[in-house]
Amino acid sequence: MAVPPSTYPHRLLPLFLGLFQGTLLLFFTLFVTYDEPSAQAEDTNLANQVYSTFPFFQDIQVMLVVGLGLLLTFLPRYGFSALTHNFLLLNFSMQWALVLQGLLHHFHHGQIHLDLHKLLVSEFAAVTVLISVGAILGRASPCQLLVMATCEIPIYLASEWVIVTCLGVLDVGGTITIHVFSCYFGLGVSKALFRAAQQPLHPKETPTPHSDLMSLVGTLILWVFWPSFVAVLCQAGDAQHRAILNTLLAMSASATTTVVASSLLERDGKLSPGHLQNGSLAGGVAIGVVADMAMPPVAALALGSLSAVVCVLGFRFLTPLLGRKLTLHDQCGIHNLHGLPGILGAAASVVAVLVASKDTSGSHPSQLSPVGGNASQAVEGQRGGRGAGGQALCQAAGLALAIGASLLAGLLTGAALRLPCLARPPERLCFDDSLYFKTQDQAESPGPGGSAEEGALALKE
Amino acid sequence: MAVPPSTYPHRLLPLFLGLFQGTLLLFFTLFVTYDEPSAQAEDTNLANQVYSTFPFFQDIQVMLVVGLGLLLTFLPRYGFSALTHNFLLLNFSMQWALVLQGLLHHFHHGQIHLDLHKLLVSEFAAVTVLISVGAILGRASPCQLLVMATCEIPIYLASEWVIVTCLGVLDVGGTITIHVFSCYFGLGVSKALFRAAQQPLHPKETPTPHSDLMSLVGTLILWVFWPSFVAVLCQAGDAQHRAILNTLLAMSASATTTVVASSLLERDGKLSPGHLQNGSLAGGVAIGVVADMAMPPVAALALGSLSAVVCVLGFRFLTPLLGRKLTLHDQCGIHNLHGLPGILGAAASVVAVLVASKDTSGSHPSQLSPVGGNASQAVEGQRGGRGAGGQALCQAAGLALAIGASLLAGLLTGAALRLPCLARPPERLCFDDSLYFKTQDQAESPGPGGSAEEGALALKE
Amino acid sequence: MAVPPSTYPHRLLPLFLGLFQGTLLLFFTLFVTYDEPSAQAEDTNLANQVYSTFPFFQDIQVMLVVGLGLLLTFLPRYGFSALTHNFLLLNFSMQWALVLQGLLHHFHHGQIHLDLHKLLVSEFAAVTVLISVGAILGRASPCQLLVMATCEIPIYLASEWVIVTCLGVLDVGGTITIHVFSCYFGLGVSKALFRAAQQPLHPKETPTPHSDLMSLVGTLILWVFWPSFVAVLCQAGDAQHRAILNTLLAMSASATTTVVASSLLERDGKLSPGHLQNGSLAGGVAIGVVADMAMPPVAALALGSLSAVVCVLGFRFLTPLLGRKLTLHDQCGIHNLHGLPGILGAAASVVAVLVASKDTSGSHPSQLSPVGGNASQAVEGQRGGRGAGGQALCQAAGLALAIGASLLAGLLTGAALRLPCLARPPERLCFDDSLYFKTQDQAESPGPGGSAEEGALALKE
Repeated sequence: MAVPPSTYPHRLLPLFLGLFQGTLLLFFTLFVTYDEPSAQAEDTNLANQVYSTFPFFQDIQVMLVVGLGLLLTFLPRYGFSALTHNFLLLNFSMQWALVLQGLLHHFHHGQIHLDLHKLLVSEFAAVTVLISVGAILGRASPCQLLVMATCEIPIYLASEWVIVTCLGVLDVGGTITIHVFSCYFGLGVSKALFRAAQQPLHPKETPTPHSDLMSLVGTLILWVFWPSFVAVLCQAGDAQHRAILNTLLAMSASATTTVVASSLLERDGKLSPGHLQNGSLAGGVAIGVVADMAMPPVAALALGSLSAVVCVLGFRFLTPLLGRKLTLHDQCGIHNLHGLPGILGAAASVVAVLVASKDTSGSHPSQLSPVGGNASQAVEGQRGGRGAGGQALCQAAGLALAIGASLLAGLLTGAALRLPCLARPPERLCFDDSLYFKTQDQAESPGPGGSAEEGALALKE
Repeated sequence: MAVPPSTYPHRLLPLFLGLFQGTLLLFFTLFVTYDEPSAQAEDTNLANQVYSTFPFFQDIQVMLVVGLGLLLTFLPRYGFSALTHNFLLLNFSMQWALVLQGLLHHFHHGQIHLDLHKLLVSEFAAVTVLISVGAILGRASPCQLLVMATCEIPIYLASEWVIVTCLGVLDVGGTITIHVFSCYFGLGVSKALFRAAQQPLHPKETPTPHSDLMSLVGTLILWVFWPSFVAVLCQAGDAQHRAILNTLLAMSASATTTVVASSLLERDGKLSPGHLQNGSLAGGVAIGVVADMAMPPVAALALGSLSAVVCVLGFRFLTPLLGRKLTLHDQCGIHNLHGLPGILGAAASVVAVLVASKDTSGSHPSQLSPVGGNASQAVEGQRGGRGAGGQALCQAAGLALAIGASLLAGLLTGAALRLPCLARPPERLCFDDSLYFKTQDQAESPGPGGSAEEGALALKE
Repeated sequence: MAVPPSTYPHRLLPLFLGLFQGTLLLFFTLFVTYDEPSAQAEDTNLANQVYSTFPFFQDIQVMLVVGLGLLLTFLPRYGFSALTHNFLLLNFSMQWALVLQGLLHHFHHGQIHLDLHKLLVSEFAAVTVLISVGAILGRASPCQLLVMATCEIPIYLASEWVIVTCLGVLDVGGTITIHVFSCYFGLGVSKALFRAAQQPLHPKETPTPHSDLMSLVGTLILWVFWPSFVAVLCQAGDAQHRAILNTLLAMSASATTTVVASSLLERDGKLSPGHLQNGSLAGGVAIGVVADMAMPPVAALALGSLSAVVCVLGFRFLTPLLGRKLTLHDQCGIHNLHGLPGILGAAASVVAVLVASKDTSGSHPSQLSPVGGNASQAVEGQRGGRGAGGQALCQAAGLALAIGASLLAGLLTGAALRLPCLARPPERLCFDDSLYFKTQDQAESPGPGGSAEEGALALKE
């Protein structure tokens, strides 16, 4: 069972990561500083930022580090790798996004003033990598994942800049800019990396009852904290309050509808763990783009239900179809959780924009979009001189751009990941922690196998 | 091991849930809306609600979805079901409570204005269902659980209205209205559902070391966030601060006392996992009713210790006794965690009311009860013209009413759950995830059994 | 496998704990009260304390109860004990610290006014015990652990008083006062308790893949909430904001650098789970002492990276060396996670003090240290009349004092733990839950072994 040390090259990982850490330190030394602690007024402002933003930030950290990490542990022998790679990628991507954002956007007077908001935006960029990885989880080496993150972050930043700042798309919860983008980027990578070869079912790929349970715990953690993710960048007050409520309603509707849909689709009426783990979250993906808009609560419920149905249908029919027809491999079903509900949410935003404008006589649609954050200032200005039809068109254009750009960029990135030096693991060693970690099995293997008592213990555990 | 698809009817679940979802959507379409985003003043108010209530709300969500869910996974082969049913029931009951509350209480001008506070009150209603289920966990079908929730929510709302609004009982943490009520409701259901038949010990019922560990993690999550549950509805400021401190003290005393009590009761001085999982939380149940009253800190400590002792004694002596004498089945021991400590807390509130009135010369007992929230306004008025003796009597009457009404309603509900169409699982299939979920065992069963490697893998995990 | 009831004395534990609970109740009755609810101004103040401190407090509770508890479950058959002992010690130590602090510091007019801040300070004292225990985890009885806590808390309070109040050491995140102190205390205990005997590798000591996974989840929870631990006592506003950012940067750098270091050190480039579980947190330990000082962000990154390297090197080389040369046993490697990074952080604080004084012409170093909380008022005064060199000397003296005092006190405490009545478990029964808990194995043992189905079930789980 033990892999001979020489069969698998691991040296690139520390080299790559070490070099990046050096670059990061250099960049921070040269360019990054804190704001000067100056007036009392600013102090109050920062205190407010701590009390208003920090709890949301912590919630999101729990979601990404613990919730998403556990969700990925459904692969029974790959749990430690899934958790670790998720954690490593989050940190690497966040640091990388911080560097790039510093260079691209916030370059004033040669110095970048770091604050919690900038870290939050970098964290959002890192989310795209964590989602995209789901398409190739278990069949890619850590080096491949890091290279993928290196490519995805700048493309995401560019795409987000075009969609939100240039096009003026309203997307407070990142449905289009984060979920749809990262889904099709991941699928593009998967397609180019695995090419035409259909991936056979690996014996280590099937979840066990226990790994399914841990994964469901991850889902529940994500489910609980999702409102913080959607609402953190909203304008404080009414818009944020409404975004939280809409997200709560959509998540709740998703949870119950997933049970209905999964039960109806399976021939013996039993529920599929995979449906529950993903469908319960579909509402959160879809609601992001409309969460702070002026729409009735029933719309949030309906959107949550619909996206759960779409997600479950995707798992049942679309993923097998894509696998057969396009030989497209999607390990975690990110297309069902992030792609389809994301598109649904974008469509809902088009409707919401059009309907809201009718309600307010179409003259000033400014009421429908109290998007928050500094980034939205420019948006507000643009939208001010734009009719509801124009805004609806923009939403659609943003969606099309996100899909098109990410798919193309993903295909190119996936092709780059085929470089032999990135050490894609051979098929028989996929989905196995022992390839990357000194696990117990290996620590034992040099010895003669341990006493009988130990053997019994290992079996029992 | 696999259950033939035809032996067990699953079709009612999606039908029932689907119909409910439809009703919910209709109800929301007709009646529910958000407040108009209007003046700046209101905006600040909503922002405050987000910053003051939302963190508490999130804490409570973590408790119910993750903490309580994990606590119920002590049944080793039923963990996935316990977690899922808990999650489903929370969402279903919350939605159902939202509908009923809308119809009953908040019907102003034909429109219900949804806000975070209304969601919170619905969540509290859902808690009663999650507690009651503990009495019949593992031996009831999801349909039975949903019907039970459908019956329990309106009865809870009525009982809470009578106890708090009509009788003016002080119960900020829901000790009487939530814990005592749901406990006796659950026991009533259990009695009527299982009738005279003594439930034999099922081979799948005994916890394994691992399932006990997961369950303890759930306990710890509940333990950490319990102060938020008790204090969320308190008046901001002094009362809320005191409620948090009292709860922290009571929980801490419970944790240490549970170890003492459990160790003394077992003949070889070893601790019972079940005692730890439940006793550590008993203080939180008991303190709820007095948490914001003016009493010395030592009272919180003493109440926490006493309720832990009562809880452990209940597990050791009362539960077996009730099982033998009354053939009363209580799977999770909810009587020990919610019933006995709840009664103890109610008794403590009687004492606290009487003592506090003596301290302040008995003339104006308004100082002893800074209960918060809008609902308490009416209470304050009533209590103003009521002596301490009258208030003490009210507390006792509230307790008696909660026990009586819930027991009766539970018995009736339990009788209704015996309807054959609700598909109570046969005894040999109880406590087994494979009855409701497509687990690995079944996914394998169609094939010839998998390779030897896979078998070894399954054994190892 | 079952331990005969008579072989192991468990009676001392409830006796000791019960006596302590009694003392606690007596002490609270005599001395502890809440503040009178008086003016409106105070009410607002308390409300602010609830909203500003309580979320941090909850985060820290999650860290200690759930995060640290899970981190210690890496011992596969000792998980339940690790979680329970951690939980029990936290509560016991917090109560004990509350009593001692009341007696020592806060004795005004015969009455102690309890508030959230006092509970928080007691919780910090309890942390030292939870860390020190790591050195002897699995080989000590609960009685020994409680006696150790009883000794450690007063010594910590005295040492913290000398270091912070008398010497005026700046240490907002407890790097020196908590981490370094508790590490060397624990090592001292371990040395005196196990004396010269080298501890052989116990067969139950080796982690399994599953226990490693659970432990990593604990690490991740600690990682996420660490900024709250460091920043909770900072002055609100600029200092707190900077402490949060510095901690986030240091933790992030630790996470990525740990992967680099661990991968480089193992001969086949694989990562060690132990390195990840500990190295990712090393940055948080080191940053505490400088988190709120005026230093560039790059310093936080560098300190995080460096401490991760030091931690991994410690695991790889120093721990085995100390084991061989000094027969020093350190079960959880607390020297690598708390000792070495703590010393590194203290050294960094010396540099930070010196550099900051140069930047501001050395005349008034008050800008470099916006430490918060009431305790720092005295410090501010002292530092006002002290040059940067003096402050740097103080930091070094504080470190030396923390190491020396804790090591000495630990050795004495460890010697006391050798008392036979404290019932140190025999070697063959170490690392086993069944010594302290009624586990499934034992519940089964009286019967003839259960049916074949049950056996299969046990194996499967």
